Amino acid sequence: MMQVYLDNNATTHAEPAVAEAMLPYLTELFGNPSSAHGVGGEVAAALRTARAQVKALLGAAFEQEVMFCSGGTEANNTAIHVALETMAGRDEIVTSAVEHPAILAPLAWARKRLGVKVHHIPVDGAGRLDMAAYRAALGPRTALVSFMWANNETGTLFPVGELASLAKAAGALFHTDAVQAVGKLPMSLKESEIDLLSLSGHKLHGPKGIGALYVRKGLAFQPLLRGGHQERGRRAGTENVPGIIGMGVAATLVDPVDWPRMAALRDRLEAGILAAVPCSQVNGDVANRLPNTSNIAFEDVDGEAVLHALAKAGIAASSGSACTSGSMEPSHVLRAMDLPLRALHGAVRFSLSPRTSAGEIEHVIEVLPGLVAAARERSPLWADRQKELGFV
Amino acid sequence: MMQVYLDNNATTHAEPAVAEAMLPYLTELFGNPSSAHGVGGEVAAALRTARAQVKALLGAAFEQEVMFCSGGTEANNTAIHVALETMAGRDEIVTSAVEHPAILAPLAWARKRLGVKVHHIPVDGAGRLDMAAYRAALGPRTALVSFMWANNETGTLFPVGELASLAKAAGALFHTDAVQAVGKLPMSLKESEIDLLSLSGHKLHGPKGIGALYVRKGLAFQPLLRGGHQERGRRAGTENVPGIIGMGVAATLVDPVDWPRMAALRDRLEAGILAAVPCSQVNGDVANRLPNTSNIAFEDVDGEAVLHALAKAGIAASSGSACTSGSMEPSHVLRAMDLPLRALHGAVRFSLSPRTSAGEIEHVIEVLPGLVAAARERSPLWADRQKELGFV
Repeated sequence: MMQVYLDNNATTHAEPAVAEAMLPYLTELFGNPSSAHGVGGEVAAALRTARAQVKALLGAAFEQEVMFCSGGTEANNTAIHVALETMAGRDEIVTSAVEHPAILAPLAWARKRLGVKVHHIPVDGAGRLDMAAYRAALGPRTALVSFMWANNETGTLFPVGELASLAKAAGALFHTDAVQAVGKLPMSLKESEIDLLSLSGHKLHGPKGIGALYVRKGLAFQPLLRGGHQERGRRAGTENVPGIIGMGVAATLVDPVDWPRMAALRDRLEAGILAAVPCSQVNGDVANRLPNTSNIAFEDVDGEAVLHALAKAGIAASSGSACTSGSMEPSHVLRAMDLPLRALHGAVRFSLSPRTSAGEIEHVIEVLPGLVAAARERSPLWADRQKELGFV
Repeated sequence: MMQVYLDNNATTHAEPAVAEAMLPYLTELFGNPSSAHGVGGEVAAALRTARAQVKALLGAAFEQEVMFCSGGTEANNTAIHVALETMAGRDEIVTSAVEHPAILAPLAWARKRLGVKVHHIPVDGAGRLDMAAYRAALGPRTALVSFMWANNETGTLFPVGELASLAKAAGALFHTDAVQAVGKLPMSLKESEIDLLSLSGHKLHGPKGIGALYVRKGLAFQPLLRGGHQERGRRAGTENVPGIIGMGVAATLVDPVDWPRMAALRDRLEAGILAAVPCSQVNGDVANRLPNTSNIAFEDVDGEAVLHALAKAGIAASSGSACTSGSMEPSHVLRAMDLPLRALHGAVRFSLSPRTSAGEIEHVIEVLPGLVAAARERSPLWADRQKELGFV
């Protein structure tokens, strides 16, 4: 059976070159980069190379702006911690209603535990930010603005350049959770006003367990993990050397040539599915999305039933963030977009990688309509809909 | 040139079986364990196995008591965070003067930022805890007691069983930083009163970037990293799957048979060095130490000079915690032991692994005395000492 993996926003495979580059740092080159003796020195040099590789991917000005950590979640939690610790006299945070739980959960804690006021800026039906609400929320008490660059469920892009400029004009820190955006879009942080940016290795064909926080040079900082002097005193703990090496190599493998090709395959997938499946629609800002992401609502059917049928057919997709899967609650992202109830439960996310082939996409287009039809046969909602539409 | 690595308390090589076990989880088995489709399910099963392997190493009662995280530093920071968040009405923390920076630094922050009172219990000249001072520090305001199981610099063991009982009797949480102890001592947490215990993968021949916090079942918990539901809601972020798998395998490779053999080699190293190097002494509680650690003070010489000469001769050792190396400050551990000044700066830590051979130890015994003598030739302190002793 053909296996098709279209869940690359949940996680990606590490490229063979990534695993290969990591291996020596697990075995012979195992030294602690903080050690004075030669065993660690060679490792320290490799870490510098990896830092330069990630810096280049981000278009950052300085290597020291790349602070490695354990992943996107730690990077997000750290960014919030930095704002809470360094922005004295400011006790409000502005974010969106559609952020990842790794932003929403620490902010919920900050609200409850520290009394921070959190503004959740709403989005419209296409997932676009309400700019008037954002402008109105900004003020002299805003410590931090945190908006994701690209939404993990729909791929919708926020205009982070503009959002950052507005935040800076208000004297606030600007952070972006760019876990989904890095490696799928051009970036030049040195030309931006972004202060802090989170990224994750395993979302860009690097290993799991490694990520980074971009920290603009000169920014006041307070570490979340305290102890040793690693990462210039910003993140204690022996460096995850193989992970850092792997993430550096993954950064070099990002090739902008892949992006339009992925987008064309994604568009072909959508066109094929929408043509063959009645009462289906694309969620999100179609004109302004990641090149690899498609979120399709199959009305009047349970998305989990479709996913299950797809999985049995060897096709891996997702109903939303893997971080919230297992719950039957509809996605907070789609709810914030105020999707009609009949579409809310039937959303399926397809996320491609540069390795996704045209053959795989055609296979999905061939297989999926029948699976949706079969799932709808078992759906009481669909029976009602047929009556409503006068089909039965 | 023969290469001898005696810096295993800084970091260890990953065993070949560890790297081998990790590799498939970097490449083909890359799924997100939180995903509903099959790609992630297989991975979730492997994580359960690794959790059981670590549980067995610790002698814990339940697999769910093992919470994986990015390493010992994160585990320590999390343990402190748990105490600060869950022990309402208690605002004092008891620890020792010789803890690792990953305990001392977050506690210094808690004192400064949150007004927590921190008691640093002193040690005697052999690094043994002042039990009377500990008892006196405990009280109804003690939220947390955190004592390391084994000191990273001298290997000296604290009586954690007894320390935990006293803490529990006072109604406090008991945490132990067991990063150096795990895998070098028998452990049966299910028979202890320890609430929280930190361990690290790369200190026991597993990979870097992975560690765990043991959390006694039923303990009130507040995560340090918030977001997804991973690790039963205690530590958000996509799991470092290859790291967890590697740590699990490393746990199975721990073999108590190695311990007396390592201790015998360590004792042979000490005897050989002390016999050949005048004015040298062993630091720490010789009768009650890790089997792999030896801390030797070479009086009236700079330890860094000895280390540098050793490194040039292919022998890797350390002057203390790698986390604080690079500074010329004498170790806070040896200072707390009130070592004479002439010994303080000349301390060198040798830390063995189960793979350390008798041949390697004999090589060090052969090479080291000449290197110390040469370093002393260049040391003005040594010249003074010779005069003082009437040798010149």
